[in-house]
Amino acid sequence: MNGYSEDKAALERRMKRIEGQVRGVAKMIEDDRYCIDVLTQISAVSRALENVALELLDDHLGHCVADAVKGGGANADEKIEEATEAIRRLVRS
Amino acid sequence: MNGYSEDKAALERRMKRIEGQVRGVAKMIEDDRYCIDVLTQISAVSRALENVALELLDDHLGHCVADAVKGGGANADEKIEEATEAIRRLVRS
Amino acid sequence: MNGYSEDKAALERRMKRIEGQVRGVAKMIEDDRYCIDVLTQISAVSRALENVALELLDDHLGHCVADAVKGGGANADEKIEEATEAIRRLVRS
Amino acid sequence: MNGYSEDKAALERRMKRIEGQVRGVAKMIEDDRYCIDVLTQISAVSRALENVALELLDDHLGHCVADAVKGGGANADEKIEEATEAIRRLVRS
Repeated sequence: MNGYSEDKAALERRMKRIEGQVRGVAKMIEDDRYCIDVLTQISAVSRALENVALELLDDHLGHCVADAVKGGGANADEKIEEATEAIRRLVRS
Repeated sequence: MNGYSEDKAALERRMKRIEGQVRGVAKMIEDDRYCIDVLTQISAVSRALENVALELLDDHLGHCVADAVKGGGANADEKIEEATEAIRRLVRS
Repeated sequence: MNGYSEDKAALERRMKRIEGQVRGVAKMIEDDRYCIDVLTQISAVSRALENVALELLDDHLGHCVADAVKGGGANADEKIEEATEAIRRLVRS
Repeated sequence: MNGYSEDKAALERRMKRIEGQVRGVAKMIEDDRYCIDVLTQISAVSRALENVALELLDDHLGHCVADAVKGGGANADEKIEEATEAIRRLVRS
């Protein structure tokens, strides 16, 4: 079971909303909306995606990483390193 | 006419692809895929969105801001300040 | 003359403050301060640096890029592309 | 003992280098260096700071958070939430 299983339905709703926001940006471009307004909407989509990522990360730390830590050994170190790399990608995207 | 008008078709294709990627993330969650894999895909979507935003910004600077600068006066200062605020939102999202 | 010349003294004071903040982070590490407190201070330094960068960018758009636009020709396109690449680095750092 | 204790000397050297880079940016401004060159150097400083933060975070997850998880109970949840908030600040700075 994944860390996010308990939040699965809520996460899927949020992704559905983000999908709609992305379609909204495409529509703004189609309708020749002013560049700054399109950029503002893209920043809002990025922020919403970031929030989903942070929730997934919190769930991951609290379940997958925590379980590995309790189990101890090399697996725990690998899980922590893997989480740090995911955080690095998030920070850089 | 907006700065991005010449790139409109290409931008719409890219947004369509991003919409597909967002649906892909939702499917990964639905299929209980491993958290880190979902996070990796979210970072890819964020990066793709960022690239669309940077292209829109480049077009905006080269057309809307440039035209305002050529016209001179307060409108030019407003356009530059407006662009900087859009950059700030992009940097912070 | 650079776009930031008018703000030079203020920018130098802000960089001096950031230098002090960086020394402060080093001192926290030396004093074995709690990791999260050190991380919080690093985020504050990053934010202060970002604000200096955004001001430099605003000045650059309003002076160097605007002057090139008024002069017209290839130089204007180069200046705009150069500014977009600087924004890309800022967004990715 | 903090998670970063083993890396303390290396972290302090890196912060010393970052302090020098920050002074370098101030000198570039004092010397009226071209805006884009100053911006490029600021992005380099931000990237170096980010790398220090990611190392601190990795150490923190592997020690403070891991120890709390092994101890179990509310403290573990608090430590994970605290780490996620630090990651949020890092992502947004």
